[in-house]
Amino acid sequence: MSSFGFTVHARDGAARTGAITTPRGEIRTPAFMPVGTAGTVKAMYPEQVKALGADIVLGNTYHLMLRPGAERVARLGGLHRMMRWDGPILTDSGGFQVMSLAGLRKLSETGVVFQSHIDGSRHEMTPERSIEIQTLLGADIQMQLDECVRLPAPREEVEKAMRLSLRWAERCRTAFGSQPGRALFGIVQGGTDEALRVESAKDLVSLDLGGYAVGGLAVGEPQADMLRMIETVEPHLPTAKPRYLMGVGTPDDIAQAVRRGIDMFDCVMPTRAGRHGMAYTRHGRVNLKNARFAEDIRPLDEASSCAASRDYSRAYLHHLVRSGEILGMMLLTWSNLAYYQDLMAGLRAAIRDGRLEDHLAEIREGWARGEAGAPTRP
Amino acid sequence: MSSFGFTVHARDGAARTGAITTPRGEIRTPAFMPVGTAGTVKAMYPEQVKALGADIVLGNTYHLMLRPGAERVARLGGLHRMMRWDGPILTDSGGFQVMSLAGLRKLSETGVVFQSHIDGSRHEMTPERSIEIQTLLGADIQMQLDECVRLPAPREEVEKAMRLSLRWAERCRTAFGSQPGRALFGIVQGGTDEALRVESAKDLVSLDLGGYAVGGLAVGEPQADMLRMIETVEPHLPTAKPRYLMGVGTPDDIAQAVRRGIDMFDCVMPTRAGRHGMAYTRHGRVNLKNARFAEDIRPLDEASSCAASRDYSRAYLHHLVRSGEILGMMLLTWSNLAYYQDLMAGLRAAIRDGRLEDHLAEIREGWARGEAGAPTRP
Ligand SMILES: [Zn+2]
Ligand SMILES: [Zn+2]
Repeated sequence: MSSFGFTVHARDGAARTGAITTPRGEIRTPAFMPVGTAGTVKAMYPEQVKALGADIVLGNTYHLMLRPGAERVARLGGLHRMMRWDGPILTDSGGFQVMSLAGLRKLSETGVVFQSHIDGSRHEMTPERSIEIQTLLGADIQMQLDECVRLPAPREEVEKAMRLSLRWAERCRTAFGSQPGRALFGIVQGGTDEALRVESAKDLVSLDLGGYAVGGLAVGEPQADMLRMIETVEPHLPTAKPRYLMGVGTPDDIAQAVRRGIDMFDCVMPTRAGRHGMAYTRHGRVNLKNARFAEDIRPLDEASSCAASRDYSRAYLHHLVRSGEILGMMLLTWSNLAYYQDLMAGLRAAIRDGRLEDHLAEIREGWARGEAGAPTRP
Repeated sequence: MSSFGFTVHARDGAARTGAITTPRGEIRTPAFMPVGTAGTVKAMYPEQVKALGADIVLGNTYHLMLRPGAERVARLGGLHRMMRWDGPILTDSGGFQVMSLAGLRKLSETGVVFQSHIDGSRHEMTPERSIEIQTLLGADIQMQLDECVRLPAPREEVEKAMRLSLRWAERCRTAFGSQPGRALFGIVQGGTDEALRVESAKDLVSLDLGGYAVGGLAVGEPQADMLRMIETVEPHLPTAKPRYLMGVGTPDDIAQAVRRGIDMFDCVMPTRAGRHGMAYTRHGRVNLKNARFAEDIRPLDEASSCAASRDYSRAYLHHLVRSGEILGMMLLTWSNLAYYQDLMAGLRAAIRDGRLEDHLAEIREGWARGEAGAPTRP
């Protein structure tokens, strides 16, 4: 098992379940990748992340190149060793964060010149440098540099960014070269324009990359637009390669995208929400800041396999959140990631059993019943 | 084992090792009590605190009475159940924090009227209310309300506070009544005045309380003054009752106080320092913010039984601390509490083996060698 591969074990409609194999272990799909921005899944010990059933985590190239620096991470033995995560790691290209976090950006055919949001220092990000950094970090799955436009945008702007992203994909492929056991993924762009999305997908597929991501979605557009774009792109992606919907999303977004053939997800929602008093549960989202939990001795979910969800009262979580206590962030992050991993395990089992539609109806019913709080996005 | 008791198992000079028995379990002495201010030992799961060898934790009456409120904690089944700590809990009286944190304080014979630092609400703290709150919280060891003066202070002010504290001790004893399995401790006051300390100790002992604390020290005075006060008070305290040095201290403070017959300690140092990038180790204090750790792949202590001290590189800890990551606080708090508990276990073993002086020389030598950083207060 020293090469990178992907096998589909079962299908149910457009949905599939399988496994990505890497020298660092198998990634059961559909997979949710907890986000470890700066080399840590915030407020979690790495052993906990693994124990929840996460097979892979994501690292952010932009953050890590600025601090501690890619060359430094390499000298420390790579990102896996530094953060004590021996499973696979996917790194993004850095492009999205350069566009959303960095100061004074200047985009050209070559790449992007930008200033660090930490100390104002000047950096250049090109397709070649992005791959160099991801390789220094030791990422098992690397992402091409792309240009993400903020939607809504004029069609010509979306098209221009899509074509630049395609040219950058080729440069990334050349820079990536041959890295046994590792893969480079391309990113389908094109906003909410179906023709652009199809063209982007076809051109990327002709590059024969290790996997294909759908990018530039979940940036505020209606869920229906996002799902329509997945449906548009999916028939043009090879069935034998993993498909990754970047930055998505709510439990319902994920369930709906799995139903449309997506294999991989990442999102800061469970971790970020956990640091802000919000819990994701079988019964929907629960805002623990709410005063009605002040004397609620029930746990978030008495049937959960996660101690954070099962063993602590909502009253105590409410107290911790109101008091700004770190333990509140630790427990809610843990509980949320457990819920997300349980969601994925349930989806995988349902696909295997050929009962995905029934399963989706059941989980949506659980959210809608909302025993424990307000329902999620219906 | 349903009553509160204390047994000395071995002595070495003035030092002793033994156990406080309570219906919730035994407290091995000398004991270090991690501080769980607002119902949580910050950045730690309760199971971790227990696993490190802590037999008892401390809760702060002032914080808990304001949020979530003593009556609310009682309705939630008490502090043990709320915070999921089934071992003994000691609560302070609230007096120290009223004096240091609250606004607009007014002290009288009756008690203190003050404003909450959280919402400005008005509260009254009397000896009777302090005991009522500690009883509502369910504290196994409760502390008398006392008046702590800020040193240096004129002798007459120190004396006045000491006498008020004695009158409050009597009122606390009456309010405490008979609580099987629980104990009320008195607090010896008197600043750095030997005569006042002796008078305070004698008068408190005549009240026949469950244990005796030495208060008003470790507030900035030289270590020698603190140790002199312990030496002054110790001969006047009954050997059959536990002795508690409040709010102390550095590893060396603790070692020196154990040598002089103290059985119990609490301090925010290991937890607070852990949240600010500072590690306590066998080799002294290590400031992980320091740039010299940026590529130091050694762990804090390769021989530690604590994963946080043993399994993570200093370079990674440095990165986490510099990045303000919660995991940095979690790991350093964990490592520091592990070191403090290991320190206590080592002191207990050395007393049992009659080799405390040799042991003290060894640990001080380890700090002074300072392989891993600057030595602690020598
Ligand atoms: Zn997201
Ligand atoms: Zn202290």
